[in-house]
Amino acid sequence: MRLSRSFIPTMKETPAEAQIASHRLMLRAGLVRQTAAGIYAWLPIGYRVLRNIEQIVREEQDAAGAQELLMPTIQSADLWRESGRYEDYGKEMLRIKDRHDRDMLYGPTNEEVISDLFRQSVKSYREMPQILYHIQWKFRDEVRPRFGVMRGREFLMKDAYSFDMDHAGAVVSYRKMMLAYMRTFQRLGLKAIPMVADTGPIGGDLSHEFIILAPTGESQVYYDAAFEEVDYGTSGTGGFNYADAGDLHRFFELMTTNYAATDEKHDEAKWATIAPERKREGRGIEVGHIFYFGTRYTKPLGVTVAGPDGKPVHPEMGSYGVGVSRLVGAVIEASHDEAGIIWPDAIAPFKAAILNLKRGDAACDGLCEQIYARFGSSALYDDREDRAGVKFADADLMGHPWQVVVGPRGAAAGKVELKRRATGERVEVTPEEAIARIG
Amino acid sequence: MRLSRSFIPTMKETPAEAQIASHRLMLRAGLVRQTAAGIYAWLPIGYRVLRNIEQIVREEQDAAGAQELLMPTIQSADLWRESGRYEDYGKEMLRIKDRHDRDMLYGPTNEEVISDLFRQSVKSYREMPQILYHIQWKFRDEVRPRFGVMRGREFLMKDAYSFDMDHAGAVVSYRKMMLAYMRTFQRLGLKAIPMVADTGPIGGDLSHEFIILAPTGESQVYYDAAFEEVDYGTSGTGGFNYADAGDLHRFFELMTTNYAATDEKHDEAKWATIAPERKREGRGIEVGHIFYFGTRYTKPLGVTVAGPDGKPVHPEMGSYGVGVSRLVGAVIEASHDEAGIIWPDAIAPFKAAILNLKRGDAACDGLCEQIYARFGSSALYDDREDRAGVKFADADLMGHPWQVVVGPRGAAAGKVELKRRATGERVEVTPEEAIARIG
Repeated sequence: MRLSRSFIPTMKETPAEAQIASHRLMLRAGLVRQTAAGIYAWLPIGYRVLRNIEQIVREEQDAAGAQELLMPTIQSADLWRESGRYEDYGKEMLRIKDRHDRDMLYGPTNEEVISDLFRQSVKSYREMPQILYHIQWKFRDEVRPRFGVMRGREFLMKDAYSFDMDHAGAVVSYRKMMLAYMRTFQRLGLKAIPMVADTGPIGGDLSHEFIILAPTGESQVYYDAAFEEVDYGTSGTGGFNYADAGDLHRFFELMTTNYAATDEKHDEAKWATIAPERKREGRGIEVGHIFYFGTRYTKPLGVTVAGPDGKPVHPEMGSYGVGVSRLVGAVIEASHDEAGIIWPDAIAPFKAAILNLKRGDAACDGLCEQIYARFGSSALYDDREDRAGVKFADADLMGHPWQVVVGPRGAAAGKVELKRRATGERVEVTPEEAIARIG
Repeated sequence: MRLSRSFIPTMKETPAEAQIASHRLMLRAGLVRQTAAGIYAWLPIGYRVLRNIEQIVREEQDAAGAQELLMPTIQSADLWRESGRYEDYGKEMLRIKDRHDRDMLYGPTNEEVISDLFRQSVKSYREMPQILYHIQWKFRDEVRPRFGVMRGREFLMKDAYSFDMDHAGAVVSYRKMMLAYMRTFQRLGLKAIPMVADTGPIGGDLSHEFIILAPTGESQVYYDAAFEEVDYGTSGTGGFNYADAGDLHRFFELMTTNYAATDEKHDEAKWATIAPERKREGRGIEVGHIFYFGTRYTKPLGVTVAGPDGKPVHPEMGSYGVGVSRLVGAVIEASHDEAGIIWPDAIAPFKAAILNLKRGDAACDGLCEQIYARFGSSALYDDREDRAGVKFADADLMGHPWQVVVGPRGAAAGKVELKRRATGERVEVTPEEAIARIG
């Protein structure tokens, strides 16, 4: 994309309303704009990052055997009356009357709708187990939305729902999803720690939150070094196989026997028993939450499947949420410096920026066009008529993993400067070497 | 995907509420389920098709130079008061009060929001022109939703918005989008005819609808054979280049000088002047609508950019909509038979179905697994313990472009039957030949 013609409105000043780093940087780098309180439009480079994260979440859900579908944003209140949650949910639920005065709502979560789809469709234990997920916009009418996309009202969430014939099966599904989450975070370049959590309005008796480590995180976290030593692998690799119950058990033991807690639940007595060299502390941000709640919804909604003996069985359910739009903010909190964002390669909006330091100089223009032609839409070509300082600052702010800096002296000698954003390392190389390194 | 474990609830009976072919077939083949009046959940194979269509729409928008972003579903009423449309829009707009009693709405279209984003971001003629688009769910509270996803309340639409410095520029943008649409429909395997249209609530003085030919279409259409003779090309190919104003002019002349009208606007006198061998008639379905409306929104919203002389100019706008979820229905209306759907290759949920006619037969099981391993998630393996007749019927119903039929006699001889859904043609081939033909 040519920056001179692109819709990437960067800002020089720090917006006064933004209290945290990711909010400031997302506004300044032109990733999002607020269109109403806690509601954001995702501008081109912000949307690229959102879609890149969404795709990694999707691939890891698919690899774990979950099937993707899409439930609508607007739901009927009737199902929520069946489950008993309509009155309970409170003011965070956006309640709507349609033109026929029927009670509707903007889904804050989807246990009721998925249970309804399931009860219409699955009849026999032969079709079990099932894990179904979607990646859809949700609305929670926060009383005081803040921190940009970290606590917005309209947000993108991946929510999965598992259906099993019994408790033992449900535990296997729960472990699969936990592993899928750890793989997802690892691919996003994040360090994540699962922590025992309260079940809240979803109900149930087993629940974990996933906390991402970031120096600017909202809570203090204490954890054992073990979490940093595990290679969770990506789909198809790593030490754990979804099809192997023993692997899943071993993985779950690792995740649950090692100490991990936020300051709210921190247990100083237990912490004191851990060897000092194993203790880790940091700040963290919650980005995901998983629940096992058995028949909490399948009983009131009358969901049954026929067991091997023909008798109806209420399936045991779990639900598994990760905040996809929140992850964009969390990644920035975990990976930025004073100059701007530092995108992990896996989710960067562009692999590289090409900085033309002297537009109109034949050698600069020619070299830039030649490099840009090789990358096409995966590079951002800064072809603006602007000072070099502005281009350096904007490239650092936007956080492209690589910068290819093309100045008149180097260009005349057939050389460019290649800068790695994460380390600040700069080398003078030929255009071919630059292209090869960027990959 | 293994059909025995997949969430694809097919139905043997024709649902009573479905009046048109696409609605019946989408329910029967397990593509969608209604969750509230005019609101649908997209089940796994339906969602695959929706995403395939969405991706083709996206690629052709990108190729035309449009930039993707994402505006939220929930909007503030304030902007609609600025444009003067809040009171006018009527009961199709889903109006919402949030917890602070602010007037919100579920966006039925996005002229106001995009104009607001544009006025915050683009300051100079140097950054012009701009075409911005998003693919987002919309809500229109139809008084009587019907025909499945063809006239639902919550629907997926691609809407693009162009901003130009003057009328001449706006006309170029309009032609680019028209070409992008014809390329999109061609890639989807559809015959489309652009027709002069009324501008309705969007306003403006130039507008075209795109009508897809389908034997079960809602209106009668009359058109010149010329529309069937043009090769619109796909991005990067074909006789028309987006960067060449002459090409765009020639394309637009072709689209607008040849006769085309629905029965509502049919002009018998003009029709009589067309040579009989050039006359074409058929049934059609509207799937897209484009508008040029100049400064209809930029004036009331006070959107300006500085011209070359420094003076503020109200940009000239156009908007360009295509019903992405509606297209799923339209494709089925255009491509089905009594047995079921016939998916065009470009958007099929799976390339092929593999039909195991005798589960438990070592040769059948082995051959099926071998072929399935080659295709992975791009094939649907019917591994159910069911009669061959059920498998044939479901494969025809679901409309996979190819069926690989593996029966015990053939399998013993190392042969399979390959069936092409569109033609019904069947050939006995080796598994390798089948794999090669499916591609």
